[in-house]
Amino acid sequence: MRELQDLQLLIDNAVTQLKYPPYPAELYEPIYYILSMGGKRMRPALLLMACDLFGGDVEKALPPALAIEVFHNFTLMHDDIMDNAPLRRGKTTVHERWNQNAAILSGDVMLIEGYKLMMQVEDRLLRIILDIFNDTAVGVCEGQQLDMDFETRNDVKIDEYIYMIRLKTAVVLGGALKIGSILGGADMKDAELIADFGENLGLAFQLQDDILDIYGSPEKFGKQVGGDIISNKKTYLLIKSLELADEAQTAELNKWINAKEFDSQLKVEAVTGIYNTVQVKQCAENAMHEYAEKAFEALEKINLPEENKQYLRDFADSLMVREH
Amino acid sequence: MRELQDLQLLIDNAVTQLKYPPYPAELYEPIYYILSMGGKRMRPALLLMACDLFGGDVEKALPPALAIEVFHNFTLMHDDIMDNAPLRRGKTTVHERWNQNAAILSGDVMLIEGYKLMMQVEDRLLRIILDIFNDTAVGVCEGQQLDMDFETRNDVKIDEYIYMIRLKTAVVLGGALKIGSILGGADMKDAELIADFGENLGLAFQLQDDILDIYGSPEKFGKQVGGDIISNKKTYLLIKSLELADEAQTAELNKWINAKEFDSQLKVEAVTGIYNTVQVKQCAENAMHEYAEKAFEALEKINLPEENKQYLRDFADSLMVREH
Repeated sequence: MRELQDLQLLIDNAVTQLKYPPYPAELYEPIYYILSMGGKRMRPALLLMACDLFGGDVEKALPPALAIEVFHNFTLMHDDIMDNAPLRRGKTTVHERWNQNAAILSGDVMLIEGYKLMMQVEDRLLRIILDIFNDTAVGVCEGQQLDMDFETRNDVKIDEYIYMIRLKTAVVLGGALKIGSILGGADMKDAELIADFGENLGLAFQLQDDILDIYGSPEKFGKQVGGDIISNKKTYLLIKSLELADEAQTAELNKWINAKEFDSQLKVEAVTGIYNTVQVKQCAENAMHEYAEKAFEALEKINLPEENKQYLRDFADSLMVREH
Repeated sequence: MRELQDLQLLIDNAVTQLKYPPYPAELYEPIYYILSMGGKRMRPALLLMACDLFGGDVEKALPPALAIEVFHNFTLMHDDIMDNAPLRRGKTTVHERWNQNAAILSGDVMLIEGYKLMMQVEDRLLRIILDIFNDTAVGVCEGQQLDMDFETRNDVKIDEYIYMIRLKTAVVLGGALKIGSILGGADMKDAELIADFGENLGLAFQLQDDILDIYGSPEKFGKQVGGDIISNKKTYLLIKSLELADEAQTAELNKWINAKEFDSQLKVEAVTGIYNTVQVKQCAENAMHEYAEKAFEALEKINLPEENKQYLRDFADSLMVREH
């Protein structure tokens, strides 16, 4: 089996070889720009990993892997407009560096270019692969819409939240693994199972991210502690705390959520205090373990040699053991 | 052969039967909304027409025809954001009625839904059809980008303008005819020829539109005379006039183009005066006839019974005989 880092390097290299027309410049330059920002290339690497695990030719799976990466960056380009984000990975976002129209239209053409790359598969797999890609793409759009809807709602329930992060984040991981496995020769049963593995692992990973916002060490994760609290992000912790809180705690939470001006540190301390009192960290960890467990259950059912399953287990562990 | 109006009615009916999930509402309601605005459904009707002319089953070609219509409306939804347009066909645009984010994301999902519809073809045609659809879609994005680029330029040349309207407008007409012909059983040679016919007819039609802005009768076309002049739209007439104008005429044209405040009627009269002096109408008509001629030349080479070619000739004539 190829190391995940090797696969990521393979993607990095292939990304730099993507070529688009020179003209119109404002349409194509933002594509190079956003792709050059890098990132972990986790989604395309997962696609290659699944292909490799099922005995497929990783090189032949590169175009669909790039399709997933181009698609993912299309969603980032449009999400940044919608979130009014000035920066991504420390760099100016496309709509800020060029303009909003360039970001809309470049994103549109990236989605089409994603399809073109995804179509570089054998004829007999074309429809199967594109069906998965379509479902994945629609799921991500639905997830983004729900995420925006939740921003203006204070009555989001835990199951709605899980539904949203499944669509917005987890479905692409499952889809990438599913496509990769089929390219590697997996049958539909195993393809569904590895998708199930990826989706549940994605959910567990997102919940871990929610937990680490408060309970992670900032030195280790390079993020400001409580960033989600400061921006009132509807995380598992906040939604569940609002469920668990008594009347006084609810009032206190709402006071901080509705405060237009506040001291960030005080807000983080106060909200974390409530989180601690209602013991929401334990709830979130339970949920995280539940989804990780579902991921492992799906994994066990996959028809692969033990060695390959161990590779997937190690990969899952590597994602989930971040100390907090 | 089926009448064009019948085909348009078939599309109208099929559009009302498109079903999307009820949730998230802000993602899917704008799709119903923009599709309900109607319009002539010319693009999907052309697809069905070509399928019919080559002896195909029009009913089976309905999903790809709908794909073209959904795709076209995706471009309208995003174009309206980019053009900051408050109205379309007299109705509030999606970004105004909902918000900009809903218009971005609904448009994105429409593009994906377009692919899903376009994929409803026989396996053996899937790649061929999708390749044409990809090329068409990329062309439209490039055309829209160029159109926006031209807004801020005063040195656009005629060949650049033709290149832009070919991509923005004509390529979809050619693409729709090409896809329809293949679904109807045409070989690639005839498919290319009918695409060529459609593309050149589209160019001729766009040039006619440019001419009618000034020289059409407002009662007949329901448009304000000189709307393009008032908004400084880079039409064939304006670009060619800037080429033909002497120093004084150029200064006069630029004065009106750069004027921040002006009396609309005076501007239209003054610019039309220059158009008349440099005899740009004749140039535009020559160009229009040239492209119409190219369309007819392609048509003659298509391997179809005389009766079917006559249908296409009549169709082309019906588009081009609008009195002006």
